[in-house]
Amino acid sequence: MNKKNLPKKERQQELQNLLENDPFLTDEELADIFDVSIQTIRLDRLELKIPELRERIKSVAQKNYSKVRALSAREIVGELVDLELGKRAISILETTDDMTFEKTKIIKGEYIFAFANSLAIAVIDANVALTGVANIKYKYPVVAGQKLVAKAEVTRVRGNKHFVFVRVFHKEKEVFRGKFILVSLDGEVSS
Amino acid sequence: MNKKNLPKKERQQELQNLLENDPFLTDEELADIFDVSIQTIRLDRLELKIPELRERIKSVAQKNYSKVRALSAREIVGELVDLELGKRAISILETTDDMTFEKTKIIKGEYIFAFANSLAIAVIDANVALTGVANIKYKYPVVAGQKLVAKAEVTRVRGNKHFVFVRVFHKEKEVFRGKFILVSLDGEVSS
Repeated sequence: MNKKNLPKKERQQELQNLLENDPFLTDEELADIFDVSIQTIRLDRLELKIPELRERIKSVAQKNYSKVRALSAREIVGELVDLELGKRAISILETTDDMTFEKTKIIKGEYIFAFANSLAIAVIDANVALTGVANIKYKYPVVAGQKLVAKAEVTRVRGNKHFVFVRVFHKEKEVFRGKFILVSLDGEVSS
Repeated sequence: MNKKNLPKKERQQELQNLLENDPFLTDEELADIFDVSIQTIRLDRLELKIPELRERIKSVAQKNYSKVRALSAREIVGELVDLELGKRAISILETTDDMTFEKTKIIKGEYIFAFANSLAIAVIDANVALTGVANIKYKYPVVAGQKLVAKAEVTRVRGNKHFVFVRVFHKEKEVFRGKFILVSLDGEVSS
């Protein structure tokens, strides 16, 4: 369906549908889709009582934090927007200036590592866990202000070892990937 | 030479020699070596005008920071106590409570990663650099208060790729090891 030049009523209906499917569309992206100004999208959201993106992310994340077992919710770097425990998880990180190298303004590797590593720990179905091994690759530099999406998938569980594959994207581009082997300590450490 | 039961003068001479060779010996370790109380060691240091460990580390670190090229000195996690640019480097990190997982009180993997990764970047002889690949292994959990020593060695340089091997120790035990491939951006980014 062509979404450009819709009458206001139909545009607002369509906007509501789009955000139900993907609550993480930005106002800029919506403006592009409908070929209207960002201001128009903001007014549409206001009339429809749809909160801004940041609030939508928080509200979705809130539901997921309660499911996490292997670490405390506030220890997860970024916002946890999807979680199927023991299977897969998605989190979002808005990168900021204070995460960058002074010389290059590129995000330091340790922040992307912490983002991916904490998601890997969050996704596994264990009471407590530690990282044992990680093989990671930084594919493209990330600069401050870019929004990153991390997708984790549990690929195998063998005994107390959980194999998790995490990919980090900026828009469609994969900027980082890592294979983690996590060791659950259930039974060894009282929680 | 047996260092126990030495007369005060000889003990102080020997203590000075020991600390010149290894400025990172703690008062506890020195007390053990000479079989005297920690208080005696402190008085010896006072008379000899040798500052306490923390000050000795800082003073040694200060000399090394000026040699670092690929990142800013204050971006290095821990204290840089030895640096031969393009060859090897050593840094020290005193772990603290705020680096731990709430559940287990074990130091989070991301802190040890940042400690090792920033040393790997500091050691290479390049103007700016980013981490490309890292294969890392956490061998033993570290708890808050433990002092870690990281040793980095540049094993190979091929074009703009720098291969660095980093091992992290607590006392004699290797708790972490990582192989890093760093990519220098000299010529690509103006500094």
